[in-house]
Amino acid sequence: MSDFFSETVKRLTPYIPGEQPKDGVYIKLNTNESPYPPSPNAISALKNADFEKLRLYPDPECVSLRNTYANYLGVSSENVFVGNGSDEVLATAFQTFFAGKNNVLMPNISYSFYPVYCNLYNVRATEIPLKDWRVVCDDYCVANNGVIIANPNAPTGVGVSCAEIENLLKNNPQSVVLIDEAYVDFGGQSAVGLVKDFDNVLVIRTLSKSYGLAGLRVGFAVGGKKLIEGMNTVKNSFNSYPVDFLAQLAAEEAIKDVDYLNQTTSKIIATRERTALRLKNLGFNVLDSSANFLFIIHKEIDAGFLFNYLKQNKILVRWFSDPKIKNGLRISIGTDFDMEKFCDIIANALEAFR
Amino acid sequence: MSDFFSETVKRLTPYIPGEQPKDGVYIKLNTNESPYPPSPNAISALKNADFEKLRLYPDPECVSLRNTYANYLGVSSENVFVGNGSDEVLATAFQTFFAGKNNVLMPNISYSFYPVYCNLYNVRATEIPLKDWRVVCDDYCVANNGVIIANPNAPTGVGVSCAEIENLLKNNPQSVVLIDEAYVDFGGQSAVGLVKDFDNVLVIRTLSKSYGLAGLRVGFAVGGKKLIEGMNTVKNSFNSYPVDFLAQLAAEEAIKDVDYLNQTTSKIIATRERTALRLKNLGFNVLDSSANFLFIIHKEIDAGFLFNYLKQNKILVRWFSDPKIKNGLRISIGTDFDMEKFCDIIANALEAFR
Repeated sequence: MSDFFSETVKRLTPYIPGEQPKDGVYIKLNTNESPYPPSPNAISALKNADFEKLRLYPDPECVSLRNTYANYLGVSSENVFVGNGSDEVLATAFQTFFAGKNNVLMPNISYSFYPVYCNLYNVRATEIPLKDWRVVCDDYCVANNGVIIANPNAPTGVGVSCAEIENLLKNNPQSVVLIDEAYVDFGGQSAVGLVKDFDNVLVIRTLSKSYGLAGLRVGFAVGGKKLIEGMNTVKNSFNSYPVDFLAQLAAEEAIKDVDYLNQTTSKIIATRERTALRLKNLGFNVLDSSANFLFIIHKEIDAGFLFNYLKQNKILVRWFSDPKIKNGLRISIGTDFDMEKFCDIIANALEAFR
Repeated sequence: MSDFFSETVKRLTPYIPGEQPKDGVYIKLNTNESPYPPSPNAISALKNADFEKLRLYPDPECVSLRNTYANYLGVSSENVFVGNGSDEVLATAFQTFFAGKNNVLMPNISYSFYPVYCNLYNVRATEIPLKDWRVVCDDYCVANNGVIIANPNAPTGVGVSCAEIENLLKNNPQSVVLIDEAYVDFGGQSAVGLVKDFDNVLVIRTLSKSYGLAGLRVGFAVGGKKLIEGMNTVKNSFNSYPVDFLAQLAAEEAIKDVDYLNQTTSKIIATRERTALRLKNLGFNVLDSSANFLFIIHKEIDAGFLFNYLKQNKILVRWFSDPKIKNGLRISIGTDFDMEKFCDIIANALEAFR
């Protein structure tokens, strides 16, 4: 039976996403979703959609959506690629720029999907250790066939400055540098402004986090025209119509509603800072986050114990099996109510452990 | 700059889908969409959706949708894989079963995306000629590392019987046989009933044609549990959440509404037969179609001339650049009104040519 499979399948170890419980009794702080619904304008576009149009294929080139996003970012629509969530966009970028190459640099602690893409597309990565939980951009200014970093990084939440990214690009003119900005709207510094000056940078974005649209599946890449053309060649050899009619419609309205984005991200940032303070007071090492989550470590108490204690109390957080981060937990930022409840229960956990 | 790209990109020639004009003035008979809207139950599920739930990731495993489709087909949900349209499902199947292999058999005239997937996944195909426009299954009972046929075939519309497929499976126990049934609901014979007896068959289905849901992007693979597990390994190394929340919701309701499917496909079949008769009377060779389109050839009149004449008269049909079928046109079946208009205009074209 195994001969039915290609060699590709035989080398794969799939990504494992955070649990999506179906019963709704949990406070879900495990997949970095927004605690707030999407923009009311996006919802109203969906409610008033001409559903009979679903009989037709969607625009394969997402022209209107790309124009809207380009306009929001201050780039040209030729600089924008759209996909079925930023995971698909990342996969397409790995296939377009890195497939079959060796010495592609990435942090040794980062989004755990990157090594999975490496297996899928036969990429040999060189992992660069974090220093004091930080990505040090200078460490990536060495010979390489590509670079990917997440800014802010996951699951640490720690960001790097735009000046550091600029220096990284200057020192890597020969290779493509992917900057995964899934969490940038929560206080990170974006590299989008560098796209006009550097032909080797590709910035990956998503509506799943800051826009409260994880269920819609829309992600973007923003980069030089030639890089985007390469991405389109791969996309059009894979699936002509990756973004459905309703997703294109709602995404546009969400992007136009900049006020709502600012309101919800500001609330999440304020909640994050309050939560971080309380966790520090409880004795946790709380990494300095520019994302919608916190990475926390307790010197004395096993992360697995805390994870299970929280789960028994109907709170889901993320605990990774990677030994490098096995002593920490990633906590998505929910509403103030969610986070007070979370802090109360984790305080109880500390008591229970002692 | 080209060094930025992987070797994969350098060997690609993307698929070119039929035109999707944005102005709505055309009668669109070029991409095999349904002329009828999706099931009213699907539309009403969308209208009444809890749009606030879009903040959450969709079910990565599409459990409920898979159960519904399995139930409809009389298989187990372990036999069902869901993807973002059947093109994505086909691509995943090529990657799972055929990547890197040689001597994968396919008809020399078929869905023009298959050779594109071969380039993307480094598959070397062996093309088997049609005989009198028909796929002859016995021709595929030779040494191979995989088989793919479309049943009914595209762009010819000609189908093969379930008995022929069964014989093909019996004679290929060592290789995976993909049967692409995108158009099966318009009078084809399905191989789904063979899944319980053969571990080497994978049937690909879509909601884009007979369900009037091209804009929603939902496709399926149905096959043995081991084959589906392999597909899931690839899918989970690519994109954990390929099918969005609204697509899962509406797809389920569409599948449950079997009456509506039967009504609309019956109407399309009746229109197809009326159209075929009129075209034969106009002197066309009309292939015997079990699909929602007709492939027509006129001995005397250039297909390019007809294509352009129709387009000038605001009717879009499909004319392929492949020299083997360059003398034919593929005409999607619209409403009776659409097809009468089409026949009137093509009759005028014949007059104009003479």
